[in-house]
Amino acid sequence: MIQKYRFGDPIKTEAVLEDIALSCGELPFLSVIENTFCYEMDDKDVVYGLGQQVRGINKRGWHYVSNNTDIPHHHEDTLSLYGAHNFLLVSGKELFGLFIDYPGKLAYDIGYTGRDSMDITPEEMNLYVYVITGVNEKDIIKQFRRIIGRSYIAPKWALGYGQSRWGYKNEEDIRQVAKMHRDNQIPLEAIYMDIDYMERYKDFTVDKERFPDLRGLSEKMKNQGIHLVPIIDAGVKIEEGYETYEEGVENNYFCKDEMGKDFVAAVWPGRVHFPDVLNKEARKWFGQKYDFLLSQGIDGFWNDMNEPAIFYTEDRLQNTIDRINELAGTNIGIQEYFEMTGLVGGLGNHPEDYKLFYHNMDGKKVRHDKVHNLYGFNMTRAAAEEFDRLVPDKRVLLFSRSSYVGMHRYGGIWQGDNKSWWSHLLMNIQMTANLNMTGFLYTGADLGGFGCDTTADLMLRWLQFGVFTPLMRNHASSGTRQQEVYQFDNMEACRQMIQIRYALLPYIYSEYVKAALRDEMMFMPLAFEYKDQMSRGVEDQLLFGNELMLTPVYTQNANGRGVYLPEEMMLVRMKSISEIETKIYEKGYYYVECKAEELIFFIRKGKAIPLGEGAQCVAQLQNEKLRMLGYEGAEYELYDDDGYTKDISDEKIRVIKK
Amino acid sequence: MIQKYRFGDPIKTEAVLEDIALSCGELPFLSVIENTFCYEMDDKDVVYGLGQQVRGINKRGWHYVSNNTDIPHHHEDTLSLYGAHNFLLVSGKELFGLFIDYPGKLAYDIGYTGRDSMDITPEEMNLYVYVITGVNEKDIIKQFRRIIGRSYIAPKWALGYGQSRWGYKNEEDIRQVAKMHRDNQIPLEAIYMDIDYMERYKDFTVDKERFPDLRGLSEKMKNQGIHLVPIIDAGVKIEEGYETYEEGVENNYFCKDEMGKDFVAAVWPGRVHFPDVLNKEARKWFGQKYDFLLSQGIDGFWNDMNEPAIFYTEDRLQNTIDRINELAGTNIGIQEYFEMTGLVGGLGNHPEDYKLFYHNMDGKKVRHDKVHNLYGFNMTRAAAEEFDRLVPDKRVLLFSRSSYVGMHRYGGIWQGDNKSWWSHLLMNIQMTANLNMTGFLYTGADLGGFGCDTTADLMLRWLQFGVFTPLMRNHASSGTRQQEVYQFDNMEACRQMIQIRYALLPYIYSEYVKAALRDEMMFMPLAFEYKDQMSRGVEDQLLFGNELMLTPVYTQNANGRGVYLPEEMMLVRMKSISEIETKIYEKGYYYVECKAEELIFFIRKGKAIPLGEGAQCVAQLQNEKLRMLGYEGAEYELYDDDGYTKDISDEKIRVIKK
Repeated sequence: MIQKYRFGDPIKTEAVLEDIALSCGELPFLSVIENTFCYEMDDKDVVYGLGQQVRGINKRGWHYVSNNTDIPHHHEDTLSLYGAHNFLLVSGKELFGLFIDYPGKLAYDIGYTGRDSMDITPEEMNLYVYVITGVNEKDIIKQFRRIIGRSYIAPKWALGYGQSRWGYKNEEDIRQVAKMHRDNQIPLEAIYMDIDYMERYKDFTVDKERFPDLRGLSEKMKNQGIHLVPIIDAGVKIEEGYETYEEGVENNYFCKDEMGKDFVAAVWPGRVHFPDVLNKEARKWFGQKYDFLLSQGIDGFWNDMNEPAIFYTEDRLQNTIDRINELAGTNIGIQEYFEMTGLVGGLGNHPEDYKLFYHNMDGKKVRHDKVHNLYGFNMTRAAAEEFDRLVPDKRVLLFSRSSYVGMHRYGGIWQGDNKSWWSHLLMNIQMTANLNMTGFLYTGADLGGFGCDTTADLMLRWLQFGVFTPLMRNHASSGTRQQEVYQFDNMEACRQMIQIRYALLPYIYSEYVKAALRDEMMFMPLAFEYKDQMSRGVEDQLLFGNELMLTPVYTQNANGRGVYLPEEMMLVRMKSISEIETKIYEKGYYYVECKAEELIFFIRKGKAIPLGEGAQCVAQLQNEKLRMLGYEGAEYELYDDDGYTKDISDEKIRVIKK
Repeated sequence: MIQKYRFGDPIKTEAVLEDIALSCGELPFLSVIENTFCYEMDDKDVVYGLGQQVRGINKRGWHYVSNNTDIPHHHEDTLSLYGAHNFLLVSGKELFGLFIDYPGKLAYDIGYTGRDSMDITPEEMNLYVYVITGVNEKDIIKQFRRIIGRSYIAPKWALGYGQSRWGYKNEEDIRQVAKMHRDNQIPLEAIYMDIDYMERYKDFTVDKERFPDLRGLSEKMKNQGIHLVPIIDAGVKIEEGYETYEEGVENNYFCKDEMGKDFVAAVWPGRVHFPDVLNKEARKWFGQKYDFLLSQGIDGFWNDMNEPAIFYTEDRLQNTIDRINELAGTNIGIQEYFEMTGLVGGLGNHPEDYKLFYHNMDGKKVRHDKVHNLYGFNMTRAAAEEFDRLVPDKRVLLFSRSSYVGMHRYGGIWQGDNKSWWSHLLMNIQMTANLNMTGFLYTGADLGGFGCDTTADLMLRWLQFGVFTPLMRNHASSGTRQQEVYQFDNMEACRQMIQIRYALLPYIYSEYVKAALRDEMMFMPLAFEYKDQMSRGVEDQLLFGNELMLTPVYTQNANGRGVYLPEEMMLVRMKSISEIETKIYEKGYYYVECKAEELIFFIRKGKAIPLGEGAQCVAQLQNEKLRMLGYEGAEYELYDDDGYTKDISDEKIRVIKK
């Protein structure tokens, strides 16, 4: 059952599609004290949800703020990441889901200040609260997912392996990456083009010197089964003669400052305006700009910097410089030093800067900070709505860095700029289930880690988890070690993992589409299925689909790991598509060996999964020749299609049997 | 066997005390290729050592640089921490120890660039290499420790529980901390005084307004069994009329710039000079300055900022400001923005600044960067040598942030400014064994974490590991959540853990002193004792002394953890001194429950440990009333003394029996 409550005068976010009558009276479960929703937790309560946030699957013991932020240096203590996913599921003394539909800053204290107190505090009390009850966790998730609408389904090729780097500077770099993968028989489906393909970081331009023939390049790549996926940034460079800029100015499509002038911030290209994607007209216009790239053979995009990230605003920069000049010549000690470094370090994404600009929402002037978390959502929606118009019968790949619940209908997300840290691999594992709850199925982290230098060991272990994430992309930042898998002395093992991905792809694609169709999760905490006390505490294993339990290795130099089996399962140990060992384990807790070059996972009792023969790219997959891996006699519901059709339904499911 | 090789013209570090004849001919195990020592690793090789560095007990898979650095924001990818401990132990195909006695920058690539290559590269080839072979790992450690001399033995009270915060601003703050601990029966032995006790951050001064009577305060605290432990910084404020500054200038006791003028850098007080602690005369002088505090009843010190940390140098600051002014007014885009933030962010501890000043070492002018890693060592030695002169019969507490092998004879270290992160708790666990190898026995991390906000859960779990570290200190940074254990709703559990520490203190003190006397480790990897393959991979359990195996919990919301038992052992589960459960476990791998309020550890087969009754401070401990915990019939060698005597020998050991 879903009850909907209104507080104050909420902004229409379009997160929820279903029309639900307002409930009256007191909120169940929660008490409202001033501007805070309070819940008293029991000692055994587990709190799931919040999508993209740091820490464990169980969110208890920390505090968080929904406030989309460009924050590549994030750690355990980070309060806000790139997305705002205001859904919680409390399981323990009571069982209920909670969705707070509020696009501004929303603070959660989940047993941080006091072990037993959960406090949720919006900046302003203008919001809807949805309280969802059901027979179990899965039922609550399903109800929530039903009201927010079906999750985005990417084209099948987007489940292939992608290679990215901020640093591919020209056509030759792209060709080289393609060649190295193909020469080494490392499957490859996509090469991502980071900001360097543009002319001076201008959206919807291509640098003519470095990429003289994008259409030709794109075509040649397609012939090899490789898609080019360019990045699109939120900020539009201020430059006379630049079409997007001029159109935006002319039509009042940019966000305005308080005085009604186009608001100026600075990002990659220096000074930019932000397209007002909360304005329907501007959104349509911005979406149409993608046609420039679609028409050159591009069929996938990633939207970036759309929190939106701000490097600085001019006044703040000038004030900072003035202050530094004041300090210069004095004896700069502790206070002054921290002030100076704090001012410069604090130029980017300054909270006050988000109060300096305005949207035109259906004719109403709305200050940005009040709808901040909707920006990336609507930038992505701009593109998705255009794709629906322009290529109505074909799915286009689209994912975003920033997001809000509702955007899951239009595209996926990658899990933001992360680091080549083992702790971020673990965070990736833990975050994925919580993202699935909130509708984000097409998701994955930058494998190997984006910032910092990765290691061969970390790259390989991260790939082993990435074998299962719909978005399987290796991405690295400028200035870091070369990170394509052929750079490492364990390339052979990396290659085998990517080949295993392609062999598992019929299964992964099927689970992905079924989860979208049925409002279910692909990655799920053990406790959603197994009701024993031990399962509730497991933070480093996940159920995958209806058939598997994943037990990724996420520590350096490991030879294996501890694994909890809530019931009998079948261990699968794969070194390659053809080297597969299986072994039945009884319910219990075990140390399971897993050498660096081995992928391990478990098939749940009585289940089986299809396994293909792999390929160098999705177009070459032969789904007629599937064998079944798992328990004898088990049946599996396989969804399959041509990978592009939008006609997706249960009717395309067929049952296959081991 | 120890072989010593000379390369070039090494600087005398005084790390090694024993006079060892030089070996001729080729280095065993290693090849020398240009400026690099190379070793080809086998697949199974484990590399221990490096003391204070990030990552696991096994250092393989990452690269490191010995280059003492003030780096509170350290992560998995950090190359240098606060200390330089150039000892490695390779165990696998071959078994040998390696000590590179070189005080400049020394880079290690241990299977980072290539899985099987270990490369060690000094900045200049002026150094001694010691190659140590032996019958096993423990034997090699013992030989190494013998040549570097006996580890510092702190007074017994320094093994009590200490409370610290950068933020205790006056006498009242100190009294309040003492009162809250005593009122709540939380044992307390020491309150640490961070930089705010000084007058404008001037060493060897006390702010008269905030601390009008340090001598009186110190006495009152002593009457409650509480020691005050002030911080001493490396930089001496430039201020006319300030005695330490004027004496240093007058006698040429400060480091010089290239032109022979006193070198200026900036730290807490703004502009400072660095005492030239590598100059014997200056070192003696600087040590004597501690008398000012000793004479006020102080008997413990922590030396800080002695890498030495530099906030900025004046020229670099001016150049930075000039450049910012140049950029101002231009369209600051990606390059300029990263340049500007990089310049300001890079002001502190800039590598080039360490080439701008010089030491006077026995009349020879030596550029600082060539002896950089000796600075903290010799600042600490300055104090220790003075204590030996002034209070020859009494041990004084002394520990440092920066260190080099050799300093372990003069004082301990804390593990530097860390964070309130679960990953830093794990790093603390993993680092401790490697520090023990290099002679640093008196050590511990800032419990609860220094930077960032801690949580009740993390505080408690960290205390549970801290129960065993000789330095058991809760320390937090300015601007973070209040972190004294009475601030949390699990205070009762924290209190019990600290009481357990005092009950275990007879054992911990005994193990500490015996380890120092016998050149052994207190904290040891499992594989040093157990020769099975599984033990070699364990990264989150440690042997403690001769009797225990520690299995700390280091994850959020955990109810237990996986534990490997290489042989039969006895689980000890303690909620308090009086609530103790034991259970025998056979060799194997288990999930062992461990609720937040429980301390678990294992007693090795056939062993037993003494357990006292605890107390509110060390002076109240009743060591006559020890009971034995463990296997029936087991004997234990107990060392004990008055806690202050320097007359420490095996003769004070008595055997007690369960």
